[in-house]
Amino acid sequence: MLSKNKIKLIKSLSQKKYRLIEKLFLAEGNKLVTEILNSDFKVELLLSTTDFSDSFGSTLTNVKEVISVMPDDIKKASLLKTPQQVLALCEIPRNNFSFDNLSDDLVLCLDNIQDPGNMGTILRIADWFGIHNICTSKNSVDVYNPKVIQASMGAILRVKVFYLDLEELIKKANRAKLPTFGAFLSGKNIYSEKLPEKGLIVLGNEGQGISTGLESLIQNKIHIPEYNVIAGRGSESLNVSVATSIICSEFRREKLITAIQN
Amino acid sequence: MLSKNKIKLIKSLSQKKYRLIEKLFLAEGNKLVTEILNSDFKVELLLSTTDFSDSFGSTLTNVKEVISVMPDDIKKASLLKTPQQVLALCEIPRNNFSFDNLSDDLVLCLDNIQDPGNMGTILRIADWFGIHNICTSKNSVDVYNPKVIQASMGAILRVKVFYLDLEELIKKANRAKLPTFGAFLSGKNIYSEKLPEKGLIVLGNEGQGISTGLESLIQNKIHIPEYNVIAGRGSESLNVSVATSIICSEFRREKLITAIQN
Repeated sequence: MLSKNKIKLIKSLSQKKYRLIEKLFLAEGNKLVTEILNSDFKVELLLSTTDFSDSFGSTLTNVKEVISVMPDDIKKASLLKTPQQVLALCEIPRNNFSFDNLSDDLVLCLDNIQDPGNMGTILRIADWFGIHNICTSKNSVDVYNPKVIQASMGAILRVKVFYLDLEELIKKANRAKLPTFGAFLSGKNIYSEKLPEKGLIVLGNEGQGISTGLESLIQNKIHIPEYNVIAGRGSESLNVSVATSIICSEFRREKLITAIQN
Repeated sequence: MLSKNKIKLIKSLSQKKYRLIEKLFLAEGNKLVTEILNSDFKVELLLSTTDFSDSFGSTLTNVKEVISVMPDDIKKASLLKTPQQVLALCEIPRNNFSFDNLSDDLVLCLDNIQDPGNMGTILRIADWFGIHNICTSKNSVDVYNPKVIQASMGAILRVKVFYLDLEELIKKANRAKLPTFGAFLSGKNIYSEKLPEKGLIVLGNEGQGISTGLESLIQNKIHIPEYNVIAGRGSESLNVSVATSIICSEFRREKLITAIQN
């Protein structure tokens, strides 16, 4: 039985304030929730049509409470325009930050990313390119925002996100001689640079780019050159998630060039 | 004076049916409309606060009618959550399709792209990488959808889009020995392939990928390998606009590697 209080709780998770109080986030849709149920994430409440929960049977070991509902109940609780058969309230995991864990691989650092769609897409890109850690300034959009969760397509289960002071982090990297990269208009051509297998890659805000406080700390300024500059025609900037994908592709290129698929 | 009929006309352009009848599309925001006013696109109606139109003065040569309004009037007519100082109704340009014009450069071919945000982002990527022509199946989202226009950030002014039968187009390319490429899971590693400077690049639908009817016609199957395959861990697929950006980056890479910025 789906009570009014439960619906209220679910709806409240669209707001960060309530996510912090409840320590829960909302995930919707058959594919995403199936991935969650197969992960080690803890599910506080699973709201599911019998069709969906039957397909799982007795394997729901990390679920505290299951409520079987009619499709109409899912609609009542859902934040989506076209709800599917299931939604889950999941515990927000506590990721313990350790600089040493970061310093052996590539890490994306996000400076004030505002758009939930961009944040979700960046998580998905990180996941694709095997980047397991994202550090972000505290003024970025919350990764447990339902719109980010939906756009990340399950990447949130595999990529750890840390909200912290990026200035401190970059200073620490500089002291540890870990290379730091950032995308700037004045940067060097990313296609001709030799890129390392570890280091911090800083991406900036959708409108303003990387903040000036961070700019002076970043050791290696890189740039995605625009084809139209060759053709002698000005054009627009790249969207931050598109820039992220090209940068990650270049950083992983040398390893991927010899990859044999399936 | 902003009449109720004008507001009704503007609002109606959120629907394809009315865009086809009126042969107009809606563009909003100071930056985008400024770009339009500086282009050779024809503006049927400009709705603008005096602040904005003063900044243009008498240079509005391609505008049929200007209505000076108060910010509240813009709000009444706007489809955006946070309207700015100006919106424009523009003539939908008639782009005459010529296969010969396409065969000397790269062309993106979009098979059933549904999401307006993806379509807008793909236009922007094409613009960045100097791809001037996009061919798309007739079941893709309309590029003059206001959401596409906003997401394209002015790229619609520089990239021509043709709605046509992709099967016919690819057959024609095959007969003309113009190379055709498509992204498939079973394709060859894009990072190790030698990619030409001209040809068709086919991108598929968000959920289903490239339709089977087209698949058999495409000569070169390529694939963006996933880093996690190396690391022995499965992950999600890439969003179609992210895949487009990586593919375009690879096709233009050889020319861009020697590009000197500014």
